[in-house]
Amino acid sequence: MKTYEIVFQPDGKRIKVSENSTLLEAAYLAGVDLVSVCGGKGACCKCKVQIKSESLTQPLTENEKKCLTQQEQSEGIRLACQVRINNPLIVRIPEYSRSGKQRLQVEGIKTSVTLDPLVKKYHLHLPKPTITDPRSDVDRIYDELKNHYKLNGLDLKIDLLKTLGPFLRESEWDITVTLWNNQIIAFESGNTTDRLFGLALDIGTTKLAMYLLNMITGNVIAVDSAMNPQIPYGEDIISRINYVCSKENTQELQQVLIQSINEMIAHLCEKSGIKPQELYEMTVVGNTAMHHIFLNINPRHLALAPYTPVIRNGVNIGPKDIGIHINPTGNIFVLPVIAGYNGADNVAVILATEIYKRKELCLALDIGTNTEVILGNKDKILVCSCASGPAFEGASIKHGMRAASGSIEKVQIDPDTFECVCQTIDNLPARGICGSGIVDIIAEMLKVGIIDVTGRINKSLETDKIRESSEGYEFILAEANQTAIGTDITITQKDIRQLILAKAAMHTGCVILMEELGVTETDIDKVFIAGAFGNYIDVQNARFIGMYPEIDISKVEIVGNAAGTGARMALLSKTMRSLSETISKRCNYVELAAKKNFQSIYLNSTYLPYADLTKYPKTSSILKKLGKYPKKQPHIF
Amino acid sequence: MKTYEIVFQPDGKRIKVSENSTLLEAAYLAGVDLVSVCGGKGACCKCKVQIKSESLTQPLTENEKKCLTQQEQSEGIRLACQVRINNPLIVRIPEYSRSGKQRLQVEGIKTSVTLDPLVKKYHLHLPKPTITDPRSDVDRIYDELKNHYKLNGLDLKIDLLKTLGPFLRESEWDITVTLWNNQIIAFESGNTTDRLFGLALDIGTTKLAMYLLNMITGNVIAVDSAMNPQIPYGEDIISRINYVCSKENTQELQQVLIQSINEMIAHLCEKSGIKPQELYEMTVVGNTAMHHIFLNINPRHLALAPYTPVIRNGVNIGPKDIGIHINPTGNIFVLPVIAGYNGADNVAVILATEIYKRKELCLALDIGTNTEVILGNKDKILVCSCASGPAFEGASIKHGMRAASGSIEKVQIDPDTFECVCQTIDNLPARGICGSGIVDIIAEMLKVGIIDVTGRINKSLETDKIRESSEGYEFILAEANQTAIGTDITITQKDIRQLILAKAAMHTGCVILMEELGVTETDIDKVFIAGAFGNYIDVQNARFIGMYPEIDISKVEIVGNAAGTGARMALLSKTMRSLSETISKRCNYVELAAKKNFQSIYLNSTYLPYADLTKYPKTSSILKKLGKYPKKQPHIF
Repeated sequence: MKTYEIVFQPDGKRIKVSENSTLLEAAYLAGVDLVSVCGGKGACCKCKVQIKSESLTQPLTENEKKCLTQQEQSEGIRLACQVRINNPLIVRIPEYSRSGKQRLQVEGIKTSVTLDPLVKKYHLHLPKPTITDPRSDVDRIYDELKNHYKLNGLDLKIDLLKTLGPFLRESEWDITVTLWNNQIIAFESGNTTDRLFGLALDIGTTKLAMYLLNMITGNVIAVDSAMNPQIPYGEDIISRINYVCSKENTQELQQVLIQSINEMIAHLCEKSGIKPQELYEMTVVGNTAMHHIFLNINPRHLALAPYTPVIRNGVNIGPKDIGIHINPTGNIFVLPVIAGYNGADNVAVILATEIYKRKELCLALDIGTNTEVILGNKDKILVCSCASGPAFEGASIKHGMRAASGSIEKVQIDPDTFECVCQTIDNLPARGICGSGIVDIIAEMLKVGIIDVTGRINKSLETDKIRESSEGYEFILAEANQTAIGTDITITQKDIRQLILAKAAMHTGCVILMEELGVTETDIDKVFIAGAFGNYIDVQNARFIGMYPEIDISKVEIVGNAAGTGARMALLSKTMRSLSETISKRCNYVELAAKKNFQSIYLNSTYLPYADLTKYPKTSSILKKLGKYPKKQPHIF
Repeated sequence: MKTYEIVFQPDGKRIKVSENSTLLEAAYLAGVDLVSVCGGKGACCKCKVQIKSESLTQPLTENEKKCLTQQEQSEGIRLACQVRINNPLIVRIPEYSRSGKQRLQVEGIKTSVTLDPLVKKYHLHLPKPTITDPRSDVDRIYDELKNHYKLNGLDLKIDLLKTLGPFLRESEWDITVTLWNNQIIAFESGNTTDRLFGLALDIGTTKLAMYLLNMITGNVIAVDSAMNPQIPYGEDIISRINYVCSKENTQELQQVLIQSINEMIAHLCEKSGIKPQELYEMTVVGNTAMHHIFLNINPRHLALAPYTPVIRNGVNIGPKDIGIHINPTGNIFVLPVIAGYNGADNVAVILATEIYKRKELCLALDIGTNTEVILGNKDKILVCSCASGPAFEGASIKHGMRAASGSIEKVQIDPDTFECVCQTIDNLPARGICGSGIVDIIAEMLKVGIIDVTGRINKSLETDKIRESSEGYEFILAEANQTAIGTDITITQKDIRQLILAKAAMHTGCVILMEELGVTETDIDKVFIAGAFGNYIDVQNARFIGMYPEIDISKVEIVGNAAGTGARMALLSKTMRSLSETISKRCNYVELAAKKNFQSIYLNSTYLPYADLTKYPKTSSILKKLGKYPKKQPHIF
């Protein structure tokens, strides 16, 4: 039977399926999130996908004609259950067709921040103009803000003047003025001082996370997340920068990003009953490449030594200047970056963890497609960036998926039978594995001897859980009859290799920063693990496999999406915002690749947990207890 | 024979001509400026006009096909000499088809100003980034500006970042930075510190005047002028505001204005060999309605009591925000206004005449379609606005024209023969009368008894210079065989009425401000007459007919286009710019119409020079000497 390759975007998942399968079946097989209520009968109209390749010739079915608007049809939207595969296809899954919303690390660290946003509202009753008081409309407003609220030296957005005259008279001189810093950015009729909203956005290489905040209470009203729509242009930053350079055009990548952000804004507004023009400010964090692309700054030199960013400072920009659909005269603040490979997201992590003012020596890892490592305290902060890849975010792993319903988030393996006990999000039949599940699997496989410290699968084990597939050896976590996708969920030798390379990258960052500062594991008082990379990871297991140095577990704290927390803090407090500038300047960026021993430390880090097992006495002792301590010590480079 | 009415825009001239005349002939008859080198043979391709009405069916002649580009043909451009009139037509004369450029009052008052523009240039040799110095591109520039020029706390236009990375490397780190205030607004390769240019623009109700300045020397490099393209929407401000309100759309009037301004910029740049992106700033003055429309601010309430402007303050705006073709990241500063009928042009006049710091009591008149009157000194400044109409700018007068080649600028009338000796600009055969000529004519007619103090033409005079036409009585200034237009140039009773209403308006302003301040003619130490309304007027004659109170002539100074001078001063000096804000706040606006005795003073002012002749002892004594003193004193209201 013929098979065809289907590529799902923006996830980047690929799968070969046999002729005449439906796209819905293919999506399930690939472990792609796609909603279907009616089970593929073409009745629920939910499994909408966009066909990106032009090779699909099959005409619309009657069901599709019923379900899809003219607009949708013209955009190539189809019902996945109605499309029979007779060609290789590239298919985009729109965010609205996702079966379960991703779990987001919203909570994370709770860092208290004094509410003092740059955006504030003031209610005014203006005196009507008369022949003896013909002051200009603007003077009338300035004078009243001065008399009632002691505000001086104000300025305003010129765009507001267009219709100010008629507006004031229609409002009968009873208005609310919104200020950003010392600038008037909005006028509203009547008293609207109880409605003041803003957004904080974290642009990850793989994922976007957006928070809608009430800026009067400081509370998060709603959150949303989406895949970064730039994934089809390249999974990592370098491929995206190369794409931009090949086109001499930053705009295309900026545009898809802005479009997704606007969809998230529309979605958050709709579900919260807030109008986009009530969003007066948005703060944005992201790595330096995302920062540059978001601002339509050519990122070419981020990919060329010595990797200089165009701008390090924080940037204020008007929403309409980049097409973001919040109040058009509002403000967008993009936090400052540190270096070409150390972005505004890391500044936000430092804000959220308060490393900049702590006496204790802190180590922080913000795990993502790029993992940033921070080491320091109030006296000195060293930072570096590690190309860990998207494995911990569920990408580039055969059955990897984001932390959504049905993803395996915790795993235990029976040391005798090698049976897995998998805990899934929402306790649904398994559909794939998310970041925290992946950490558990590696640790458990090491403990029970399915893999050794080099990560190689032990083919000599007598178990049918290990088998050889077309892609090499793999270990079966869940069998087809237990899963939601009708096929076994496995972890392959290739997957393990990906995960080891990822953990090796971040481990190398930790070791080099410690060397640079001249400290050892015992000097470190606090470890923060950040990242929106799945459900909470098991920090014991993470340490066990050598994601970070062996530091007393009581010192380790999971802080969730600390970059998002920092972005929210900058939204709510102008002190935090100016602090972000100070942090950006204070941090010492360490270029790992420039270090002489980078290569050897990296190679040592590709062992589980590390080539020099003396650095991991606790892991060593467990392995010894389990009889899995290597007979031959790994070679230390 | 059939006749058809032809309307020439933007002049607003109307003329009835017989069937089969050419448009070129009609233009000459109407006294409209239209160039023709070949004398109407269709050979020189110069007399291009744009047909605005759709009633012209005559196909293009062979000559027109030869002369006009496809683009021009599609825009309705024709050669005036080739179009035979068989219909009423509305015809626009493009600025490039004008026969003689208008004489502009460029010189005027010379007020010294210390060169200290907000725009400055700095040349930098930047150190190249290395692995040990990976500072961001922007930090590299900021640091160098700090080290070499002691500049701190800088900011920059985000737009500049888009291509900054590649630009710096192509320029080999040798660049010139342009600052506006503390903000970087441009980067150029190499050392361009010797090229720094700016524009000053005066937007009159009837005329636009633009100055191109070298901001290193402070010199004017070139000037340009044009008719205000809004004239077809209404000759005065009120009709234009009404037009805007009827459409609920400020943009249309703004757009035609911006288009004309851009044409002037292109023209000035071309003739000076300067690129538009080398123009980093433009300062703009104009009355409050022009100010609002230029900024696309709804001007509706300027026409409704109590005539409040939307904004009084000076406004900085980006060129691309309103579509002005100077450097897109440059700046446009629109000077502050005083009140709804007292604009930025008047602030500029006060800057130029330095009334704000003088000990002497000064009276200033800025004569235009609206005439602003200023009375005061360093202690107090009163201002008012008079609706004088466009008569002194040559509009709404039968043979009125702007001060261009062939316009009558000085007139003497023989008291016996009533023969006129007319001096024209460039000594060419007369084509019409400009502002200064008009003042002379009224004074001379009064002196020789052609009119009396009420302005009525003395029909009983025995001279063939006075005749009755279809439009009432008129006085012949130049006969057809002496003129360039093949027809007599006359001044009609209606014209005289227009001029008297115009001078009465400004005289009323002077009298009311003097009353308000409690001063008389003898208290005034200095009179400034400003206005780009023609060639220099004869101040004796102007006083003789009562354009301003009878003050010793040695105190009177003509200051030309003082509003333009003020705009240039604000361009060249930030001190002058902040002073403009102070002036705008300090001036006391007097609403003439709100004064109880406004009506009576206005009626008294409609006499030549004034109903109360005791206020004009010098004019009275001349009239007595000439035997023209009225036997019956005018009624004083």
